[in-house]
Formats: sequence, C-alpha cells, structure tokens
Amino acid sequence: MKSENSQKPHDRMAAWLASDMEAVNTLIRTRMASEHAPRIPEVTAHLVDAGGKRLRPMLTLAAAHLCGYEGPYHIHLAATVEFIHTATLLHDDVVDESGQRRGRPTANLLWDNKSSVLVGDYLFSRSFQLMVETGSLRVLDILSNASATIAEGEVLQLTASQDLATTEAVYLQVVRGKTAALFSAATEVGGVIAGAPDAQVRALYDYGDALGIAFQIVDDLLDMQGDPGATGKNIGDDFRERKLTMPLIKAVARADTEERAFWQRTIERGKQEDGDLDHAIALLHKHNALIDTAAEARRWAAKAREALAPLPDHDIKGMLSDLADYVVERIR
Amino acid sequence: MKSENSQKPHDRMAAWLASDMEAVNTLIRTRMASEHAPRIPEVTAHLVDAGGKRLRPMLTLAAAHLCGYEGPYHIHLAATVEFIHTATLLHDDVVDESGQRRGRPTANLLWDNKSSVLVGDYLFSRSFQLMVETGSLRVLDILSNASATIAEGEVLQLTASQDLATTEAVYLQVVRGKTAALFSAATEVGGVIAGAPDAQVRALYDYGDALGIAFQIVDDLLDMQGDPGATGKNIGDDFRERKLTMPLIKAVARADTEERAFWQRTIERGKQEDGDLDHAIALLHKHNALIDTAAEARRWAAKAREALAPLPDHDIKGMLSDLADYVVERIR
Repeated sequence: MKSENSQKPHDRMAAWLASDMEAVNTLIRTRMASEHAPRIPEVTAHLVDAGGKRLRPMLTLAAAHLCGYEGPYHIHLAATVEFIHTATLLHDDVVDESGQRRGRPTANLLWDNKSSVLVGDYLFSRSFQLMVETGSLRVLDILSNASATIAEGEVLQLTASQDLATTEAVYLQVVRGKTAALFSAATEVGGVIAGAPDAQVRALYDYGDALGIAFQIVDDLLDMQGDPGATGKNIGDDFRERKLTMPLIKAVARADTEERAFWQRTIERGKQEDGDLDHAIALLHKHNALIDTAAEARRWAAKAREALAPLPDHDIKGMLSDLADYVVERIR
Repeated sequence: MKSENSQKPHDRMAAWLASDMEAVNTLIRTRMASEHAPRIPEVTAHLVDAGGKRLRPMLTLAAAHLCGYEGPYHIHLAATVEFIHTATLLHDDVVDESGQRRGRPTANLLWDNKSSVLVGDYLFSRSFQLMVETGSLRVLDILSNASATIAEGEVLQLTASQDLATTEAVYLQVVRGKTAALFSAATEVGGVIAGAPDAQVRALYDYGDALGIAFQIVDDLLDMQGDPGATGKNIGDDFRERKLTMPLIKAVARADTEERAFWQRTIERGKQEDGDLDHAIALLHKHNALIDTAAEARRWAAKAREALAPLPDHDIKGMLSDLADYVVERIR
C-alpha cells in the first residue's frame, strides 16, 4: 500500500499547498497578537512555532481545492481549525499534567495553569472571530457542533478513565470527540466553503472522520510501543494517566484473574510501581492487543480511502488517499 | 437617587420578564444536558442552580423587549450569555483558587481542575451553537468580539497582577474585559435581534458597558469592605491574589516610602502575614481610596443612566435606569 512516490504524502501536500500555508501562517501570527496582553503570543509562540505537522489546516485547504474553491476564506477556515487545535492542546496541558508536548515543555511548565486556560480561551475566541468573517452560517453550524463534540469527548474521557468497564464503543466516542470531530469538520468546511454538492461534502466528512479515528488509534498504540524520539511524547503516558485506550481495553477483556487484579490495582486504584509499565506492555503483547489494535487502525485508514470515491479527480485526491496510508505507516 | 418603588429594580425586572426567564431556564437545562457525558450537568448544576441573579440574560431580554422584539431568539441569546458567563466562572475557578463562589464551594473543590476546564469549554461550545441558531451574523460578530475581549482581559489581569506599576487605565481595560464586555454584548444583541436603529443599538451598548464597569468597581470595592454574608465572597480575596484593583491602585499612588515597602512586600513579592489585610484596609481608608473608588462607581452608574436617553419610553427603560442606581447602592 506504500505510495510509489518516495516523498511522504504529507510533505507532497505541504508543497502543493505552500503558498496557501504561508497565508495561513501569516494570518495565525496576525490574529494571535494581542495589543493589550503581550503574554498571549509568548505562550502560544512555542506551540505554534513548534508547529506540529499543521495537518488539520492542510486538510481544510486540500478539501477546498479539491472542490474547486477559488475564494479567500479557506485561509480563514484553516487558521480557525489550527487555533481550535492549539487551544485544545493548551487546555489538555492543564488536564494531563504530561511532561512534554510536541517535544517541548508544555505551556504549564513554562508558565502556569492560569495562562494555559486563559490563552486557550483567547485562541478559541479568535477562531470564532475568524469563522464569523467567512459569513457562512453553515460553516458556523459545522464548527460549533464540532466544538461541542470535542468538549463532550474530553469530558467523557475523564469519566471513562480509571474505569475498567470502558468498552470499545465508549472509546470510539472519546476518539471521535478528542480527534475525529476536528478532522471531519476541517475537511467538511473546506467542501462547504467551495459550495460542493452534498454527496461530496458528506464524502469529505466521512474521510476526515475515518482519518481522525485511524490517527488517534495509532497515537494510542504508539503510546504503548513508540519511542519518544519519534512521537515527541513519553511512552506510557496514557497508562500513567490511567486512560482506557484500545490496546488496554482489549487486554483487559482478555485478562485472567491475576491479570485483572493487576489492572484493578494500576488503573482503577492508580497504585503504580516501578516495572508496572513493562508488565502492562508484556500483557498487551501476550493477548495480541497491539496487533489487533493496529488492524483496527488499518481498517479505519481503508475506510478513509474508500470515502474519497465520490470526489472529483485531482492531484489532491491522490495525496489524501496516500495520507490515509501514511497515518498507519507510523505503526512499526 | 433611590427608586420610589420599594421593590428592588432587579426583582421588578425579573417579575416583568418572568415567562421569558422561565423559557431561558428551560433552554439552559436542555442544552446543558449531555447524552454521553453525564458529569457535565453534575458540574454545572451547582453553578446554574445557585443561579446568581441571572443579571446578564435579563439584560438581553430587557433590551429586546425595549426595542419591540416579538420573535423567539432573545431566549437563545439570553441563554448564550448565561452559558458564556458560567463558562467564565468555571475557568476562573481554575485560575483563582478562591475558596468559594456564589456562597458554595467552587467546582474545582467539588470535582477538580480538569472538570472545570473541560466543562467550561463544553458550555462555551453550547453557547456558540445557540447563537448560530439565531441565524444572525451580526449577533455572531458581536459575541465573538466580546469573547475575545473577555479572554484578553483575563490574560491582561494575570500580567497586571503583582505589578504595582498598574495604572487605572490598565485596570479599566481589565474591567472592560472581565465584566463589561459581556454586559454590553448582552444588551447590544438584544437590540440587534430586535432590528433596532443604530442609535438605539449604540445606546444599549453604552449602557451595558457603563453598567458593567460600575458593577465591577463595586465588586472590587466590596472585596475590601464587604461582609462575606452579603457578597458570598471572602473579604480580601483580591489582596491575597495580589490583584491591583482600583482601591489598591489609588492607595499605592498615594503611598509614602514606608507604605510603598508594605505594598512591595505584600503585592509584588507576595510575602503576606497575619494582620496584613487589616493594615492594607487601614491604608485604603487613610488615603480615601475607598471613598474615591465609590465615587468612580457612581460616576459610571450615572453614565449608564444617561446612555438610555435615545431609547423609547417603556416600563423596562425605567427599570434599567433604576438598576444602574441599584448596582452602586450595594456600596455601604
């Protein structure tokens, strides 16, 4: 399934969208600035400069081009999506108390919880202003619904963590909220702003949804097997935070009595000791939980590719298809 | 300036708007619910039930009626405004680490910082959905700008606190952000949804702005002289959090060398000891900082009253005028 082109699909897309992405970056820097509160760009700069892959704004730009858009507002929407993403990261910093994010110290270590919450709120409100400027009520409807789904998913994750009764269905809802909702909104609004027919808009939504789910499953998988150099995250963060991700849910479902007691102690009661993470990973291997999770991720990636069928032929279409493969190629 | 009517203006307005307020409360309860995340209403219930005075949504309803509105969307906008307010309180809980809020334990003591941040985000996104439903881009523009001003004001407050160089001009910007921006948006959108002429919309904005400023100045004043039974807040919270509010700014400006050293130790360096709050209050009295702050609050209340001039004659108009007086009557 590997693309014949040796360049990563993400990089090819970035090259294709280079001038748009420059406009997005300029807009982001302009709108991040605050005349009255200079601390705001200080807090956001290290997040925005580290930059991640800018995957979400690229999806919006790609969807708009794929549907033949020639207006200016896909830039606004791409910046909107990145602001929402960055705000979510800032609020996650408060939440997760994880030690690093995108390979740098989190904002709340550089600054504090207060700044993370309030600057996150500032970015949310900025994103809101940007989308109002597009003048499209349908876009506002999609993004307001996505925002609610994101927040709901984060709260659901909170209540589901530490709970060994969490099912894969609940996990999927959490993943839709924390990741897929913004992916699908990003692609959908690209089609909507281009005035694409309903079938195409729906296809873009389905693609973003499936891609986001595949992406998050892989992320959760790498948390239990990746190396921190590659992901910029610590291994075992989710285990330490007692999150029920797909690999864990599968291993718990297949646990014998002794193993169940281990999960109850480490996840439910949170009494973790040295060596527990290694033992947890060994149990995941023993029950094929990692292999089966990888298979699920590949299934979602295939769904994403198939969703593209109703969309017009276009360079971008091939890149989006390859991107779905690439997301699961991160699995070792 | 006391109203001849013995009933409080706030209560008269609540009576006049009773059926509308019932519709707002129903809408709030409906939209607060979350199928997937039952913790959300648990966290918000104690805030929404305690209810405060529901001042902000009443302002929206009042403005809409005053301008002759007969449609359904003032209810949505009133609920929007209350959701934004409640979300801000939840995020303030994370920020302030204050022990009580509206006379009850804060959400982060009942639950935790995580819930406060995420449920606040949920309410923001719900408010966003509600305003999109009105279908008015102008309303969306006003409320998105207000959101940005609110967030900016909160961050500005963060950077201004502990800084003895904070001027009254910076204080005013903070107050506009943390309080007046939502008051003025609440009244303005009431006029906009009613299709009121520009002069009336502007008058409603000016009224809300001045009322909000008066309201916040009084709040900051009561923090240094109120009793916790009346305000539901601890005395001296702002002093302990090293916030430069108007009374403090005035006292610092008039401080002699010894007093300046006191402010530097307690506010800049945050080394506070038993008896410091009493000494701070004594210094405020010595320099007439409380009396002069009260005079400023009354000046803004008068401005609010005068702003109402362009608006049509209406029962509500008298109540809004009396409300401006009532806000400053809380000063003892």
